[in-house]
Amino acid sequence: MRTSKYLLSTLKETPNDAEIISHQLMLRAGMIRKLASGLYTWLPTGLRVLRKVENIVREEMNKAGAVETLMPVVQPSELWVETGRWDKFGPELLRIADRHDRPFVLGPTHEEVITDMVRNEVKSYKQLPLNLYQIQTKFRDEVRPRFGVMRSREFIMKDAYSFHLDKESLVETYETMHQAYCNIFNRMGLDFRPVLADTGSIGGSGSHEFHVLAESGEDLIAFSTESDYAANIEKAEALAPATERAEPTMEMTLVDTPNAKTIAELVEQHGIAIEKTVKTLFVKASDEVEADLIALIIRGDHELNEIKAENLSCVASPLEFATEDEIRALVNAGPGSLGPVNLPVPFIVDRAVAVMSDFGAGANIDDKHYFGINWSRDVELGQVEDLRNVVEGDPSPCGKGTLMLKRGIEVGHIFQLGNNYSESMNASVLGPDGKNVIMEMGCYGIGCTRVVAAAIEQNNDENGIIWPDAIAPFQVSIVPMNMAKSEEVKEAAEKLYADLTAAGIDVLFDDRKERPGVMFADHELIGIPHTIVIGNRSLENGEMEYKDRRAGTKEGVAVTDIVEFIKQKLAK
Amino acid sequence: MRTSKYLLSTLKETPNDAEIISHQLMLRAGMIRKLASGLYTWLPTGLRVLRKVENIVREEMNKAGAVETLMPVVQPSELWVETGRWDKFGPELLRIADRHDRPFVLGPTHEEVITDMVRNEVKSYKQLPLNLYQIQTKFRDEVRPRFGVMRSREFIMKDAYSFHLDKESLVETYETMHQAYCNIFNRMGLDFRPVLADTGSIGGSGSHEFHVLAESGEDLIAFSTESDYAANIEKAEALAPATERAEPTMEMTLVDTPNAKTIAELVEQHGIAIEKTVKTLFVKASDEVEADLIALIIRGDHELNEIKAENLSCVASPLEFATEDEIRALVNAGPGSLGPVNLPVPFIVDRAVAVMSDFGAGANIDDKHYFGINWSRDVELGQVEDLRNVVEGDPSPCGKGTLMLKRGIEVGHIFQLGNNYSESMNASVLGPDGKNVIMEMGCYGIGCTRVVAAAIEQNNDENGIIWPDAIAPFQVSIVPMNMAKSEEVKEAAEKLYADLTAAGIDVLFDDRKERPGVMFADHELIGIPHTIVIGNRSLENGEMEYKDRRAGTKEGVAVTDIVEFIKQKLAK
Repeated sequence: MRTSKYLLSTLKETPNDAEIISHQLMLRAGMIRKLASGLYTWLPTGLRVLRKVENIVREEMNKAGAVETLMPVVQPSELWVETGRWDKFGPELLRIADRHDRPFVLGPTHEEVITDMVRNEVKSYKQLPLNLYQIQTKFRDEVRPRFGVMRSREFIMKDAYSFHLDKESLVETYETMHQAYCNIFNRMGLDFRPVLADTGSIGGSGSHEFHVLAESGEDLIAFSTESDYAANIEKAEALAPATERAEPTMEMTLVDTPNAKTIAELVEQHGIAIEKTVKTLFVKASDEVEADLIALIIRGDHELNEIKAENLSCVASPLEFATEDEIRALVNAGPGSLGPVNLPVPFIVDRAVAVMSDFGAGANIDDKHYFGINWSRDVELGQVEDLRNVVEGDPSPCGKGTLMLKRGIEVGHIFQLGNNYSESMNASVLGPDGKNVIMEMGCYGIGCTRVVAAAIEQNNDENGIIWPDAIAPFQVSIVPMNMAKSEEVKEAAEKLYADLTAAGIDVLFDDRKERPGVMFADHELIGIPHTIVIGNRSLENGEMEYKDRRAGTKEGVAVTDIVEFIKQKLAK
Repeated sequence: MRTSKYLLSTLKETPNDAEIISHQLMLRAGMIRKLASGLYTWLPTGLRVLRKVENIVREEMNKAGAVETLMPVVQPSELWVETGRWDKFGPELLRIADRHDRPFVLGPTHEEVITDMVRNEVKSYKQLPLNLYQIQTKFRDEVRPRFGVMRSREFIMKDAYSFHLDKESLVETYETMHQAYCNIFNRMGLDFRPVLADTGSIGGSGSHEFHVLAESGEDLIAFSTESDYAANIEKAEALAPATERAEPTMEMTLVDTPNAKTIAELVEQHGIAIEKTVKTLFVKASDEVEADLIALIIRGDHELNEIKAENLSCVASPLEFATEDEIRALVNAGPGSLGPVNLPVPFIVDRAVAVMSDFGAGANIDDKHYFGINWSRDVELGQVEDLRNVVEGDPSPCGKGTLMLKRGIEVGHIFQLGNNYSESMNASVLGPDGKNVIMEMGCYGIGCTRVVAAAIEQNNDENGIIWPDAIAPFQVSIVPMNMAKSEEVKEAAEKLYADLTAAGIDVLFDDRKERPGVMFADHELIGIPHTIVIGNRSLENGEMEYKDRRAGTKEGVAVTDIVEFIKQKLAK
């Protein structure tokens, strides 16, 4: 590609409304432009990256035996009514009406459509397993679209759905997809981790997320220092402490704490160690419990894991915290003064709290705490569960090493759906014994547009993006110095452009009449991994200058060797 | 691809609701399935064809210097208000509201979005010309979607938009696109014609449609028998007859014609030649004319060309025929008794009518006609225009040969837009003299999904589809006979599959346990151009059997030559 025939559209200034680095750099590098909130046009440079991402995904899906299909963006409401998601899905599901006022949705996902298709087309277990995928535009009406294409309303996903006679076959395809995802992100040159994910209300027996590691990631991932174990913090189990609970050494005393509304204030004003305090949080109870509210008790320095709490059968789903009014109606104390002693509602104790002794907690009387509380002696322990987020240094649930935490950006998710959709839509096949069997399903997503942003979050410096070769908009750029004045430079640049292009390499030939500094800045911003500078002086020595974007190094390369040199670089 | 791992989904029966052959065959061949009215899922076989179509389009667009981009499906209403199309576009434009009740449209086309993008990104004439394209999902809320993907609501288009400093540059890119389109449809192996098209109300100086020729086509195309001239019948000029008007030989007489409400009845009941009759049609006049209605007079055996009529400055656009009440309010006679003599409204005469003599027409009195009418003597001729559709045998407007008519399916359209959009959206650049210049624009569309259906309309027989090699879902299929029982057949088939695949050929290896007849029927239905049959008997002779789908021929080919033989076939 010649820059003169291209729409480069780089920006010098960082746009004001872009918060995260990938959004800033995608705007500055001329990759995307905002059309409206959460809606982006992909300019040529952005689209080149996106297409490379899509192609890698497509090739690896095909290799893994998945078959490509393409479903409509616009879906009839009937199917969503059938699975119950017409009601359950929030306003992220954009509901529209056509000219005849018939209800449709803009598809955020395609479980309904594919299950409908497969129940019509697949009649016998002999046609299974079947794994169908598409790479397609989706719409999710986010309440606050932000971070550019990281959380946009219209986006491109690869979504695959597999169908099986039994769980064993599902697990087999799930594992094939797990490997395919690893191949995909490896080929893209990204530092990523497959991590155990919560399966939430859908249930199902297994789920992994694929995260690109980046400090700006929204998700926290817990890793073992000594094994492959990795899990989203939502899912990572906090093991019960190996230590026994110590014997009481203090009497329980009621203390006036008029200014201690928070754990931090309590610790500061009363000299108690934070590890000797607990937080008591009230949430709505499920129908399983007679009470309306239920209390969750965690150590003062720990954080409640809302997913773990929500997954408890006694807690209402989705998780909902009680208001102060609701609490006062039962306890006669405010949120700053709650605790297990004399608590008139059922409570659940975190594993770490269960081994505490001589600890402090609210007295369920405003402005008062008990210090020196001990389980059994002062209050019955009751139900113990894993309620908290793990912290660095916790023992790994795999049994090896301790946990450390890193931030990640979720770019893929694989899921053993089981028969959630197939059951409600009655998607069955004739089994080997001639009886109808509801199919088992898996689903497997990759956010193609999001991968582009995540790759940038992981690969950038103060000058711009640093693309891995496999997804760079151009693998190589040519910067001719003063081409207008030097016939030699022009000739050498044209020849190199022709030779590299003939070798199947994506080249940006910067034939603009710009100063070299402008060209260098643009190419660094766009993140082209390999640049060849052609100038009169080096040509006289039979050389061109090679610049490595990632290493930040330069070297002279003989003109006669340059094509082979670049091929070698790209083969790595 | 092995059939056992694929979703073939062929149907034996022709579905009831499919009217045209391509729709029937796409359903039967397992290419598409209807999700809802005008919404289709592309099954694997259909998508394989669609992707090949898209790739040919993409490669030729890139070669022609166009640059790929990707715009959102969902577009904000503001831009459509800016160009006035928010009001002008009918209910085909699906207007939707997001969760915040902000108005959007599902894009049927992207002139507004691209012009907005270019006016923001392009500041100087030095960045021009620029030709941007996308291959993208579009939505048009057709009142009666039909014919499968031929006229669906959701479809995939390649739409390109070019931007220029001046008309000269626009014409240059227009011609480049004309050539690119010819290359595209040639590469696809389709019999097509670029034809002159009407530029309609948008004006602009030039437009061509690209039609795939097929008897089932909705459009009529006029060709010269002796030149390259081809035009949509909407546009094809009917030249003024070379003959002079003959002198009168009859007196004008008023005749009772109580049962002649139509030309056919008049001819039958009164023995007058149809070429000696005229039809008088009343349409709404434009503001340019003082009258509300205007009459259009054409020969009894000719058809009004509504596009030509609408393009007249004295006729209201869009063309609207007068109701009987509106006519009676002015003429005091009904539509069956109208004519030029004593007509109290202005009228326009077709070129062919202007040379008629001694002709018959309604007398503007119910149940009466005048026979023997002659211009000048009985009524003033007035304005003469080209108002009719050409018919076979008309002289070609190019000056060479006569016209013949064929049916075509419009699959592409190129258009010199001029400054229609750029003016209303104020899309300008700094010109060489430092002054702002409104850009000239062109637009260039190909209906990718429609091409698939059009190709089938042109290439089929009683057994199914006959794909041209370049867009076949599979180029070659392998049919092993009794593979389950013969190790030799299995081995030979597996080896051939591996060898052909290694040669980069798209192969369907039919490894089902089906009778050969079932496999042949499926492969013919799907339209695979080349089939290799492997059986024990021919293997013993060191041969395989090659079947040519299009020619309907078979021949034995030595096992040792088969890969080379297929390569030769595909190279043609």
